Amino acid sequence: MGFRSDGSLAWLAYLPGEAPSATTSMELAREELRQGLRQLRRAETVDVIADGQGQAYAISKTDTGYVINGGEPGVLYGAYALLSALSRGEQPPEGLREPHFPLRILNHWDNMDGTIERGYAGRSFFFKKNHLSFDPARIRQYARMLASVGINCISPNNVNVRPPMDGLLMQGNVSELKALADILRPFGIRLLVSIDFSMPSHHGLNTADPLNEEVAAWWARTTGEVYCAIPDLAGYLVKADSEYRPGPFTYGRTHAQGANMLARALKPHGGLLFWRCFVYNHKQDWRDTVTDRPKAAFEHYSPQDGQFDDNVVLQIKNGPLDFQVREPLSPLLFAMPRTRKALELQLAQEYTGQQIDLFYHGPQYEDIIEHLPLGNIQYIAAVSNLGDDSNWCGHDLAQASLYAYGRTAWEGACRAQEFAREWAQTTLPEASEEVTGMLMRSGAVYEQYAAPLGIGFLVRPNSHYGPSPEGYEFDLWGTYHRANQHEIGIDRSTNGSGYTAQYPQPLMGLYNNPDTCPEKLLLFFHRLPYDHPMADGRSLVQRVYDDHFEGALGAEDLLAQWKQLKNKIPEGTYERVLSRFERQAANAREWRDVINTYFYRKSGIGDARGRLIHP
Amino acid sequence: MGFRSDGSLAWLAYLPGEAPSATTSMELAREELRQGLRQLRRAETVDVIADGQGQAYAISKTDTGYVINGGEPGVLYGAYALLSALSRGEQPPEGLREPHFPLRILNHWDNMDGTIERGYAGRSFFFKKNHLSFDPARIRQYARMLASVGINCISPNNVNVRPPMDGLLMQGNVSELKALADILRPFGIRLLVSIDFSMPSHHGLNTADPLNEEVAAWWARTTGEVYCAIPDLAGYLVKADSEYRPGPFTYGRTHAQGANMLARALKPHGGLLFWRCFVYNHKQDWRDTVTDRPKAAFEHYSPQDGQFDDNVVLQIKNGPLDFQVREPLSPLLFAMPRTRKALELQLAQEYTGQQIDLFYHGPQYEDIIEHLPLGNIQYIAAVSNLGDDSNWCGHDLAQASLYAYGRTAWEGACRAQEFAREWAQTTLPEASEEVTGMLMRSGAVYEQYAAPLGIGFLVRPNSHYGPSPEGYEFDLWGTYHRANQHEIGIDRSTNGSGYTAQYPQPLMGLYNNPDTCPEKLLLFFHRLPYDHPMADGRSLVQRVYDDHFEGALGAEDLLAQWKQLKNKIPEGTYERVLSRFERQAANAREWRDVINTYFYRKSGIGDARGRLIHP
Repeated sequence: MGFRSDGSLAWLAYLPGEAPSATTSMELAREELRQGLRQLRRAETVDVIADGQGQAYAISKTDTGYVINGGEPGVLYGAYALLSALSRGEQPPEGLREPHFPLRILNHWDNMDGTIERGYAGRSFFFKKNHLSFDPARIRQYARMLASVGINCISPNNVNVRPPMDGLLMQGNVSELKALADILRPFGIRLLVSIDFSMPSHHGLNTADPLNEEVAAWWARTTGEVYCAIPDLAGYLVKADSEYRPGPFTYGRTHAQGANMLARALKPHGGLLFWRCFVYNHKQDWRDTVTDRPKAAFEHYSPQDGQFDDNVVLQIKNGPLDFQVREPLSPLLFAMPRTRKALELQLAQEYTGQQIDLFYHGPQYEDIIEHLPLGNIQYIAAVSNLGDDSNWCGHDLAQASLYAYGRTAWEGACRAQEFAREWAQTTLPEASEEVTGMLMRSGAVYEQYAAPLGIGFLVRPNSHYGPSPEGYEFDLWGTYHRANQHEIGIDRSTNGSGYTAQYPQPLMGLYNNPDTCPEKLLLFFHRLPYDHPMADGRSLVQRVYDDHFEGALGAEDLLAQWKQLKNKIPEGTYERVLSRFERQAANAREWRDVINTYFYRKSGIGDARGRLIHP
Repeated sequence: MGFRSDGSLAWLAYLPGEAPSATTSMELAREELRQGLRQLRRAETVDVIADGQGQAYAISKTDTGYVINGGEPGVLYGAYALLSALSRGEQPPEGLREPHFPLRILNHWDNMDGTIERGYAGRSFFFKKNHLSFDPARIRQYARMLASVGINCISPNNVNVRPPMDGLLMQGNVSELKALADILRPFGIRLLVSIDFSMPSHHGLNTADPLNEEVAAWWARTTGEVYCAIPDLAGYLVKADSEYRPGPFTYGRTHAQGANMLARALKPHGGLLFWRCFVYNHKQDWRDTVTDRPKAAFEHYSPQDGQFDDNVVLQIKNGPLDFQVREPLSPLLFAMPRTRKALELQLAQEYTGQQIDLFYHGPQYEDIIEHLPLGNIQYIAAVSNLGDDSNWCGHDLAQASLYAYGRTAWEGACRAQEFAREWAQTTLPEASEEVTGMLMRSGAVYEQYAAPLGIGFLVRPNSHYGPSPEGYEFDLWGTYHRANQHEIGIDRSTNGSGYTAQYPQPLMGLYNNPDTCPEKLLLFFHRLPYDHPMADGRSLVQRVYDDHFEGALGAEDLLAQWKQLKNKIPEGTYERVLSRFERQAANAREWRDVINTYFYRKSGIGDARGRLIHP
């Protein structure tokens, strides 16, 4: 028996059977169309004409139906686009369609023991008991789901590569990787592998110094062997010199030296090296008021612009801290014009409710892409929110974020409402309007109760779920707010840490001044007194109180609205999501009370509207 | 090869070989004397005359040496007392010597997987891979060490009994328990076993209701089988309805009903039931300002006085919270005159530096025993600080606390300085004066930097090492201080939670009034403003600052003094302890800075002496 979800086929309700095991995208496209048209009871004929390689496709109307022209895997994307439109009762897209980003990547943080770092949807469906070990039927179902929204590259293993995972490229494991790549290939999906920079030193050499010739030769040889088995491997992904991971610093080398050595091993095979820029002092002393963590990546990388080989891609998180609910864009995304870069998003809801609370990423991605200097960014990646739960994402509605990510990566634009509606129409058609509305306001609700004005890191240490206002205050990670009797926040203006100076104008000017800084980012950029007047005349602390009372009510509203959808939602989905909304409402109350009490005890200022703040 | 420590034979330097494997205490006493007198190069003859059973002994001088009269195991205690005195160059104790407490118990919190809950000295030497699995030579060495200070009962397994540990009394495991008991018996040490109250429901029955006859019969049968193998078993130890452990509450029964049922299974065999009183609401809501955790045990148990069978012993922690650096005595220790009770101490330094920081328990025990209504307490137990580290306790100097505990339990009094000197003279004879001094001031130093005025629970959640002033503030465990801009602490007076009313007079009156409350307990009992005047005129917050600056200097002093002892201490011990003092000094700085900054940010009041408090 292959994998069976319990009816939760994500948004592919028009393809209820197992995914076909074809060997080419062309064959697959035809088979998917056959299954889909039958399920949708459509009488049209659809011709598929593959003309070469490539991701683009065009759908044209014919007398009896449609014809899809495209490359391989382009025709497959055309087939899914056609079926999706028909299933939603809409016209298929017209004209030539091609993706904005050539690689649209999903990074899994799966460990070989089957656990998933920051995973909230069960265990890995790639790894078990320290081996690649998967159910081909589930992998095909997964691949079909990704292909249907255009995701075309995945890294199955965690960027925190620890033994035995550092042997994934070694003989013996490569044949298992090849088997995975072979399943994914017809779906247009290429493999990327997370590697450990120090790997040669665990496998035969006594160093991993990137300037050592034996090290370079080791990587060239190992990489060549992998490409023999998987000729279309996309390349490697590396987390180096970051949160205890080894890297070039160990050998007194720069990141350009380290990355280029690896890139040259990949170059003959057309592979890319994705080099993550999550580099900061993770052992900061809280007493150190000079170091300011958000400045770290820009300070480290921007002087090296022009030093990286052309198949090195710097992978940069959307914000300068770490996937908080609200952050400004990383200034590095605006910099380094002579270096290739990838934007890294996080689907896994590490700081945004852990797939217990609803947080649809669409509006966040829309905001990010709108403000991104798109011409400066060549690739896009997102950290997966998937696991072996039968509904893939733990929270059924969290599938919408994955869907929106795929669409965003293809389009190079995020139309959050449109993507939410597409997802809801295919997944929960009887309640699509209501669910679209819930998705669209979910992020604002979460932000209201969990994250006042961009302050960040008020979460419980380690788990990152629920409030702990001083949980990180005296810890090592550089995430402080230094609240005292009068004020809270870090002054990151040019009067303070100078972080704002990393932005180009007009952003720098905008962020530098509390009067022009967007209010949702006010406490990200500025240290302000509790009675600081906001634009609408309320004090800062009153705004915090209001947001938290409203956010908790918003969570109650989501629960209440879901209950009204009982007859429009399949029972299994209804019950699973109901229990999550109940937990979310409790979590929101906890955030409301802890944050309000924290600010009240600190400031001594009560709620202007006399609502209950626990003393 | 039997167990070999690396020269760290605890205080038994006069017995450097392996412990004898005798079958009676008499035989053992003679063998220990033979070994010890030879090692000490003493020409005296020592006759041993066993006259019956019993723990008492008397040493008398003869023309050629000494004679020890006593019971079994009394003569063994006499032999160790004699050797210890001779090794220290002192006269052996004269006259009849007998212990104050009939059972002097050590509770290990070892899990069957080999880990130790709150263990800071390696892994278990009883359990491995979910089995009783021990090195007989190490067990004999351990038993000799305990017997030499009169400890005569041990529970090897954690009071948190989780599968598979709940099968420890089951067939198959009993033969392993018997093997352990057989090794311990000649040393005068009896076994006690921690049990899971719900055990019958995991082993054949569908309930553990204490009023169910089948349950009672199950316990009677199981207990009978265990006593067949181990006729001198001391009994059972139970943690019920405490921190997620099952208990009578599950079945709507009282603790008297639950305890008596078990006690009746033990009664025919002369066994005792030790029933821990660590019962409180471990899921308190921090918003609940009425519930006050220290009140819980007294409120629950004291109305049941007279309802417990005579072989039930309520085991009560010294303080009403949980082994904090400074707590008042538990009011339950003064109550329940018709119920047998045991005092429970903790040697494991859970909240007192985890055997990284030096904390000699002697002065604390002296304070406890001095104020204890001794006539109201029949037994004594301490949670072990031992593990499979070669030096037993992780920190070599932590052995002194175990030594002092044994001596205290025998004497029914703690003479902290005398016991410290005895330990130092036998263990580190060349530096005994200096080490005695360091031990004696270690607790005061730790208290100065880690625990202002009895406030408690400013520790990091879970680990309990290092500071986190609000780590527990919004958590479930009932351990809050509710600091705001003006004041800190819980009012436990009769104006507040009323906890002080649980004490008899004059304690109640003393504690109830901030002016008469001992200053070291001031913030345990009272909520006070930061500028509250202390007896010497300083403000409360200034006292906190002063204590923390002085405490950190005290830790530096301990390190400096240890360095001066380099030539007087065996190298292995010197290096191990040196690295711990270095860690302690760093820990003390961290406590100093975090606590001072926390109070400064809260209060806005700077240090009167202008020392650096980080903003």
